[in-house]
Amino acid sequence: MVITLTTDFGHTDAFVGTMKGVILSICPSVQIVDICHDLPPQDIVSGALLLSDSYRYFPKQTIHVAVVDPGVGSLRATLAVRTERYVFVAPDNGLLDVALRNEKLIRIVQLNNPDYHLQPVSATFHGRDIFAPAAAHIAAGVDIQRLGDPVDAWKPLSLPCPERKGDALEIHVLRADRFGNAITDLTLGEFQAWNPSGSPVLIKTEKMEIHGIRRTFSDASANEPVAYFGSGGRLEIAVNGARAVDLLHLVPNGSILLVLRA
Amino acid sequence: MVITLTTDFGHTDAFVGTMKGVILSICPSVQIVDICHDLPPQDIVSGALLLSDSYRYFPKQTIHVAVVDPGVGSLRATLAVRTERYVFVAPDNGLLDVALRNEKLIRIVQLNNPDYHLQPVSATFHGRDIFAPAAAHIAAGVDIQRLGDPVDAWKPLSLPCPERKGDALEIHVLRADRFGNAITDLTLGEFQAWNPSGSPVLIKTEKMEIHGIRRTFSDASANEPVAYFGSGGRLEIAVNGARAVDLLHLVPNGSILLVLRA
Amino acid sequence: MVITLTTDFGHTDAFVGTMKGVILSICPSVQIVDICHDLPPQDIVSGALLLSDSYRYFPKQTIHVAVVDPGVGSLRATLAVRTERYVFVAPDNGLLDVALRNEKLIRIVQLNNPDYHLQPVSATFHGRDIFAPAAAHIAAGVDIQRLGDPVDAWKPLSLPCPERKGDALEIHVLRADRFGNAITDLTLGEFQAWNPSGSPVLIKTEKMEIHGIRRTFSDASANEPVAYFGSGGRLEIAVNGARAVDLLHLVPNGSILLVLRA
Repeated sequence: MVITLTTDFGHTDAFVGTMKGVILSICPSVQIVDICHDLPPQDIVSGALLLSDSYRYFPKQTIHVAVVDPGVGSLRATLAVRTERYVFVAPDNGLLDVALRNEKLIRIVQLNNPDYHLQPVSATFHGRDIFAPAAAHIAAGVDIQRLGDPVDAWKPLSLPCPERKGDALEIHVLRADRFGNAITDLTLGEFQAWNPSGSPVLIKTEKMEIHGIRRTFSDASANEPVAYFGSGGRLEIAVNGARAVDLLHLVPNGSILLVLRA
Repeated sequence: MVITLTTDFGHTDAFVGTMKGVILSICPSVQIVDICHDLPPQDIVSGALLLSDSYRYFPKQTIHVAVVDPGVGSLRATLAVRTERYVFVAPDNGLLDVALRNEKLIRIVQLNNPDYHLQPVSATFHGRDIFAPAAAHIAAGVDIQRLGDPVDAWKPLSLPCPERKGDALEIHVLRADRFGNAITDLTLGEFQAWNPSGSPVLIKTEKMEIHGIRRTFSDASANEPVAYFGSGGRLEIAVNGARAVDLLHLVPNGSILLVLRA
Repeated sequence: MVITLTTDFGHTDAFVGTMKGVILSICPSVQIVDICHDLPPQDIVSGALLLSDSYRYFPKQTIHVAVVDPGVGSLRATLAVRTERYVFVAPDNGLLDVALRNEKLIRIVQLNNPDYHLQPVSATFHGRDIFAPAAAHIAAGVDIQRLGDPVDAWKPLSLPCPERKGDALEIHVLRADRFGNAITDLTLGEFQAWNPSGSPVLIKTEKMEIHGIRRTFSDASANEPVAYFGSGGRLEIAVNGARAVDLLHLVPNGSILLVLRA
């Protein structure tokens, strides 16, 4: 059984290690895998996107724990969600929304049964006191229905999405990756729906024009901007050998225009 | 069996991975968990605090290895300490002091039996050559008495602690966490001893005044400074949605004054 | 069975976690160990050195996966290499060269059998689609000959090496470690070949002169530059309590002169 962890806890504190200690104390045989802990602090959008990019590569029945939790200690709910293939454990703040859109839902519960909390529950570290114990008990065989009351739906996440502007398509930067590539909200499916004949396109911002979509960044010359559909299935803007987001001033939520070439 | 690692080795070198290779070569079945490797270089105080915050969440008999070791290669001793619940392996420089204060001691030995070292022992990387092998041999069932000669005590750590100044209480910043919250030396027990009637308090530095202690940072408005007892049991100063240590110029060892309100 | 990972994927994305998901989906019982993921982006030299410093501390039959891959999606080959003690999986760009120089070669194959790829293979993330599946299948018992066609040799890496300049020896900085120590291309064996009588040496750059080689950095006074053979077997320049590379302006490929003292 595998439990994954996706948090904004960083690597300079003992938050993540402490969660692992709690998990192994409850379910010693589980394998714990880090997806990411260096999410920008309190950046729910980045967390939702990273989880969505990676969760489906794990074995069926993997329990995915995500904690980006600016509302910890407030009234926001805490959830466990069972889908046909996986279990997700997270605060109910939109963090699971992108991943769950692809999944076949079986059941949602609030984590409000105190028997499965680490007592006393702190007001600031539910990763340790609520989410880690929940995941470990599920890994140890506890049905999620015992963890708390049923819930009908999870909180949706407000994300930008491509918008048609006459003949053009306005897309948006969602985040930058480690290499400084800008990841946009345009999926291959949406691109093909807008451009069914596969016409050549021009990609424009104030700082650049890119002619056409290529296969990968290494198809471009050094320092040349390039657009391609990345490994997560979204259009990315890169500069071969440099950080595109810095060179081209691409910021989260910034717009990029796609125009069909005559 | 679990071995945890807490070091200042960072994530840009192969130091931590190499220690894990040594451990798995000696004891292939052990589970290795990272507590923290991004301690500020050679910062024994931060290491001692993080270990102390997290070690007790691990299963009984876990072996906690900590390496922040500015004196590596000098005459400082290397220790294994068995307590009623855990084993600790570290250089004898104060790194274990805060955790061990809570533990019931059984035995301390120096790691001076060369049979349990990785030969040849380097002068600069005892994490690989002394601490990792010691932990792995203990995990594999070797009694710590075989690792070296008995020792009476470990080196204490000099930490600031709250001081009464007339009616006021002077407390001190110990460290900043990932979110920029300042963690102080005031525990809830010490606070209640100073303020047994639970009178309202004023928290003062040159840059701020905070009225009262709340439950958590999310009880404050955006950008409002707030004080609360954190998940590690110490008073923390935070700013909801920002980095308190930067905004309020809170530095390690800096003083903060608590005053009873009339 | 152990699989190690050495990449430049960093900790801010889900790349590494996704590779682990792929591995565990194919071979659930394997133990995955991170060697390093914070290599400077696309820095093959640092990757080759770190892998070379650490791989031999792992149990025999460990599968070492290394991905620093500026040519991903281009025509560069992808390799699995079996040596007497280990298996290595990486792009064929020099990344394995330093480690393999020490190993007794058994067999090299290209990873060009699509049956062992994750389909569809992306143009930008062969870590997920080619290298992780290859390593997992090998861990699960697949002979590397089934992964693709035999190859005669791997691509060598161009590294600086010590050069005799009259009586002096010019050595070079390869990289900086986490503590700001400069790691050079001079091994103890090369040093002894140049200076068989063990004469005292002077170590010179424009910014410093160091008299003699010591055992470790803690043999020097605070803020004093010091040279010693480090845990990886190469001469290192450090400053006790500070970052040598910053203080002494030591940059990768920069020269340092060793002179025999009269």
